[in-house]
Amino acid sequence: MNSAGIDVVGIGNAIVDVIAHAEEPFLAAEGLAKGTMTLIDAERAELLYQKMGSAIESSGGSAGNTMAGIASLGGSGGYIGKVRDDLLGEVFRHDITAIGVRFETPAATAGPGTARCLITVTPDGQRTMATYLGACVELGPEDIDKPLIAAARVTYLEGYLFDPPRAQQAFRGAAAAAHRAGRQVALSLSDPFCVGRHRAAFRELVAGDVDILFANEAEICSLYETDNFEAAAAAVRGHVAVAALTRSEKGSLVIAQGDAHVVPARPVPHVVDTTGAGDLYAAGFLYGLTRGLPFATCGALGSLCAAEIIGHMGARPEMSLSGLAKAAGLI
Amino acid sequence: MNSAGIDVVGIGNAIVDVIAHAEEPFLAAEGLAKGTMTLIDAERAELLYQKMGSAIESSGGSAGNTMAGIASLGGSGGYIGKVRDDLLGEVFRHDITAIGVRFETPAATAGPGTARCLITVTPDGQRTMATYLGACVELGPEDIDKPLIAAARVTYLEGYLFDPPRAQQAFRGAAAAAHRAGRQVALSLSDPFCVGRHRAAFRELVAGDVDILFANEAEICSLYETDNFEAAAAAVRGHVAVAALTRSEKGSLVIAQGDAHVVPARPVPHVVDTTGAGDLYAAGFLYGLTRGLPFATCGALGSLCAAEIIGHMGARPEMSLSGLAKAAGLI
Repeated sequence: MNSAGIDVVGIGNAIVDVIAHAEEPFLAAEGLAKGTMTLIDAERAELLYQKMGSAIESSGGSAGNTMAGIASLGGSGGYIGKVRDDLLGEVFRHDITAIGVRFETPAATAGPGTARCLITVTPDGQRTMATYLGACVELGPEDIDKPLIAAARVTYLEGYLFDPPRAQQAFRGAAAAAHRAGRQVALSLSDPFCVGRHRAAFRELVAGDVDILFANEAEICSLYETDNFEAAAAAVRGHVAVAALTRSEKGSLVIAQGDAHVVPARPVPHVVDTTGAGDLYAAGFLYGLTRGLPFATCGALGSLCAAEIIGHMGARPEMSLSGLAKAAGLI
Repeated sequence: MNSAGIDVVGIGNAIVDVIAHAEEPFLAAEGLAKGTMTLIDAERAELLYQKMGSAIESSGGSAGNTMAGIASLGGSGGYIGKVRDDLLGEVFRHDITAIGVRFETPAATAGPGTARCLITVTPDGQRTMATYLGACVELGPEDIDKPLIAAARVTYLEGYLFDPPRAQQAFRGAAAAAHRAGRQVALSLSDPFCVGRHRAAFRELVAGDVDILFANEAEICSLYETDNFEAAAAAVRGHVAVAALTRSEKGSLVIAQGDAHVVPARPVPHVVDTTGAGDLYAAGFLYGLTRGLPFATCGALGSLCAAEIIGHMGARPEMSLSGLAKAAGLI
């Protein structure tokens, strides 16, 4: 594969998810805030894993999930992220390349193992995450493949990248390279606590470097320190060309070119596991955007992809999203 | 946990499943017979994995799945099987102990890695398996925990154990120990090709050492070299005290104490992945049997557990089988 005509390159923490069911008291006992992501160290990861129930393992990582979604829609993509040369690293590389995403970032040959996210799914389908970053802390500016960035219509960055120490440099370098090539930069805010940890840096980025912003209600409210969604939505106008604000079962609000589009959620018979819902919304939206589809259609594609992912365990598509989108008359 | 009052101890190949979706032509291209299990070596496993799509990893192994099912029903169980001291071995041990099954077989500290089963799920929900036995070849008579066997009401053996070289000795030793303690021995025939590889040994065992036999149509027909299910069912009468013969959507036929009970299958809205259907039928049946429930109820519990497992990816229960069985009025 060469770099000509790549739709999206995603940059993120390369993570394998370990997913188990539990009742709500488990979260309280472990001090985990439902619906959010907590960073944990290797020792805590080991202890928490011992307490978790029988699990399945599935490749994850926010931007990795988004790239898998774009590929499943028929889009072309690349991924930049850091695994270790261990079994979980091989699993991550297998899964993302098997779906057709170019992933050439060299694996770390020393240091901590491939990252793991311990995910607890409660009976309401909500997911609560505890992430051991492992090899992700090795990602740095030297891993940014600038010809790949220049060839991609959109460079997509996950906000979680602000957690590992050197990734923020990589992040800023990638955004600058994209803009130098006349390309667009998209950012997902990832998590309200992540926004809280890095609020000043995110505000500066959103105002200066981001063309397309993805955020859910809690994240956009955290960014602008308000508990009022309308106020947060008003604050983001003018800062970015396109803002796609997701609201779970209330659908999404797409603010672009002075207009606001209200996009309904797609009904799901049974919500099994919400892991990856935001990542897959971004996949559908960016796929539509890179094909020049109307913003409302981009949002509807986002809703469609999110609906597929929350109907089963794990954050990678199980059905062809391209097939689903064609059946729904969206592409 | 001590050994007093254990319901079932399972002995089998300790395997982690790697599960991906594919269309039927993939099976033909890879020379895999749909719905069956093929043994592969490490090199072939590596090549096949590279060709498979994005996958999830889930603990498996036929008897391991059955024990997880019995534990989910509220029964007490033990497991004997061989993993390596590697990451997949840790995953296997975590998952089976997390659900409450006693698993104390020491991991191999040298030799091949923990076994993997590469499972292809076709759009009809059927699973086709390619197994790399890895560390399972290390299982031998020295791994049979005889006090555990003596304490268990039933010792459950998977037919797949006839494939690794030394496991057959372990298998026979376990059956003899169970009978010396006045306990019952159950056997699952596992796979029609597995029966074909070891037909004479299986016939001798069934006639001489097995009290409870599990087989599907293809397996019981292979055992008695007939293509007529009624003929095979007639042949097994008298050889074992109890035979539970499963027939997919046609339910099962339970032959016991001179009677034959026809048990319907439980309807499933959407068959996602049939991996583990037979294993979970055995779990429900043995749970009922160890509680002295009528044979028809044992079969109904088998149908209930099989229905749960085929509604999602992977061969370990995602919902509490005890809760489902209570809701269905079976326990």
